[in-house]
Amino acid sequence: MGYREELDTPCLVVDLDRLEQNIAEMAAYARERGLALRPHIKTHKTAEIARLQRQHGVVGFTCAKLGEAEALADAGVLDDVLLAYQIVGEQKIRRLLALMERARVTVAVDGVEVAEALSRAVREAGKTLDVLIEVNTGLNRAGVEPGEPVLRLAREVVQMPGLRLRGLMTHEGHVGKARDAEELAEIACRAGQDMVDSAELLWREGIPVEVVSVGSTPAAFHTTAVPGITEMRPGTYVFYDNASFRFDRIGPDRCALRILTTVISRPAADRAVIDAGSKTLTMDPPPPDRRGHGYVVEHPEAVIVRLSEEHGVVELPPSARELRVGDRLEIIPNHVCPAVNLQDELFVVQGGRVIGTWPVLARGKVR
Amino acid sequence: MGYREELDTPCLVVDLDRLEQNIAEMAAYARERGLALRPHIKTHKTAEIARLQRQHGVVGFTCAKLGEAEALADAGVLDDVLLAYQIVGEQKIRRLLALMERARVTVAVDGVEVAEALSRAVREAGKTLDVLIEVNTGLNRAGVEPGEPVLRLAREVVQMPGLRLRGLMTHEGHVGKARDAEELAEIACRAGQDMVDSAELLWREGIPVEVVSVGSTPAAFHTTAVPGITEMRPGTYVFYDNASFRFDRIGPDRCALRILTTVISRPAADRAVIDAGSKTLTMDPPPPDRRGHGYVVEHPEAVIVRLSEEHGVVELPPSARELRVGDRLEIIPNHVCPAVNLQDELFVVQGGRVIGTWPVLARGKVR
Repeated sequence: MGYREELDTPCLVVDLDRLEQNIAEMAAYARERGLALRPHIKTHKTAEIARLQRQHGVVGFTCAKLGEAEALADAGVLDDVLLAYQIVGEQKIRRLLALMERARVTVAVDGVEVAEALSRAVREAGKTLDVLIEVNTGLNRAGVEPGEPVLRLAREVVQMPGLRLRGLMTHEGHVGKARDAEELAEIACRAGQDMVDSAELLWREGIPVEVVSVGSTPAAFHTTAVPGITEMRPGTYVFYDNASFRFDRIGPDRCALRILTTVISRPAADRAVIDAGSKTLTMDPPPPDRRGHGYVVEHPEAVIVRLSEEHGVVELPPSARELRVGDRLEIIPNHVCPAVNLQDELFVVQGGRVIGTWPVLARGKVR
Repeated sequence: MGYREELDTPCLVVDLDRLEQNIAEMAAYARERGLALRPHIKTHKTAEIARLQRQHGVVGFTCAKLGEAEALADAGVLDDVLLAYQIVGEQKIRRLLALMERARVTVAVDGVEVAEALSRAVREAGKTLDVLIEVNTGLNRAGVEPGEPVLRLAREVVQMPGLRLRGLMTHEGHVGKARDAEELAEIACRAGQDMVDSAELLWREGIPVEVVSVGSTPAAFHTTAVPGITEMRPGTYVFYDNASFRFDRIGPDRCALRILTTVISRPAADRAVIDAGSKTLTMDPPPPDRRGHGYVVEHPEAVIVRLSEEHGVVELPPSARELRVGDRLEIIPNHVCPAVNLQDELFVVQGGRVIGTWPVLARGKVR
């Protein structure tokens, strides 16, 4: 019996061969260009996939939240981690110090206050903490502005006892709003250049910059092409998703994760209801040139027009009107990372059969 | 130390006094009008809140998915459940039969095929299953159209061995699109009237209709006012949320659940970044007349303009520009149900102090 009949729905199915291909390709790209590969674990949150990434050569992992890093460390697959996030507050600093006993830890900082609090804490604990300055290259989230503001913060951080400034990092996630491949390349290269220019300011002043780190799967092959970038931190590439195959070489056949779902109602000729709603597919919007809450593999013309928590309402093209209650569909989610975060486990398939189950061990670790 | 300092963030905080007030009020409303109260557990997914609801008098609970009902049954708080959902597929039918050993179960059906499969299965198992016909009163999700189509399906279902037709149900969630209180009342009453009119068709033909059941917190006091409605199934009322206090008597002070979050970056005078992103607040949109990804209790003029997975970007009004890194904020989520579904536990506070932790035991039970 194949996995489509065997598994109860809705559930997340990972094709092992596709997954390994995606992991191997990104590793090869990094290797060929002499880039350090430090994948973000937010996409998969599983020990087994982290292990595969290690087998293919990574320098370590990236996490947003301490809880993700703790979960991976507990599973024995994390010994070098960048917390690409501001660590703020007593509770978090205590946990950071504990994590430093178990792994090499680098932390992002984007302000004097946060850096000073870290400096004070690690000094009292008799430790040294590696830090990267977070740079805003256009996402307009956290981060200091490129150029002089980076230099000003760097001058302060290098003076702070207990901290060792290792370089700069950014997340160029604003490539997501690009309207075409050309614009994407342009935004990504601009972000990379801003990083390298900022790094150069530091060099000129004698502040060593060992790491110039960029993130984001859609920008991966553009930002990293700027000479001077040393590290890449893609996340989504292990699975890819509906936002991945907008302009370029990534087609749905490369998407290693699909949501298996069942048609539970056919109330009208042009409407089917599936058992995956916002608690499975998430409410993350499609990329700008698409419609609906995911890509229906069997019927790419079908549009998932509306989600309730446990229902997906699918508008059917004439070619899909034969769909019956009980039929199964596979959906590529708009954004795979939050979809994985809703699950307790991923079902692993190879050659159309279920070969295992992987717990999503860092699920819900938002602290 | 108060809960705002004690707890690590982001986390979900439930005010016990507000919660009990909300539960008591809805119970009193149902009691006074002779309505059966069958709350949907999707909102809280916890045994402790189910227990409180039982103390205040409910006839049973509503669940969408079998997994929710199984989790509540495991916790010993479920003995009568309406699965307001189509049960489709072998795996699900097996689980349904097992659940029937532990609780009185009623299931929604909206088509002959689904009903026939259930009839076959319960007959083989030597059981009798209660069913309600699901009616589409305007949400355009699942359900048969009111009037004649309901009657036609009812005629078939009453003939099916093993099934006992108990009545009709609808979810009038389409009140959410109302632009004002008047329109909300109108849509809700229309839905209620369609239900009662459909029920009357059945009565006239000698098909007994014991239950005419409606759902939805925003419509609760309107749909149920239509004479002939026998049961109400609100969910959100235990907590209320940003969508609850659009037109009427529910203000933010009635919202029993808030998301406690920390400011982690202040990169610009008019921008703060908080540690709650889409993996905490969800991407559920605000009600039509609001902006942003939640209601900031301390600064109602602030707008959470953008979410990444672990970051919330807040646009600050002039009055909130003094906000500093490390400050804490409380947010009422746009839609509380999926926000709870992202958490492993709720922190319970009373008089400003943490008095307990409740596991979200049906979290992620989407099957």
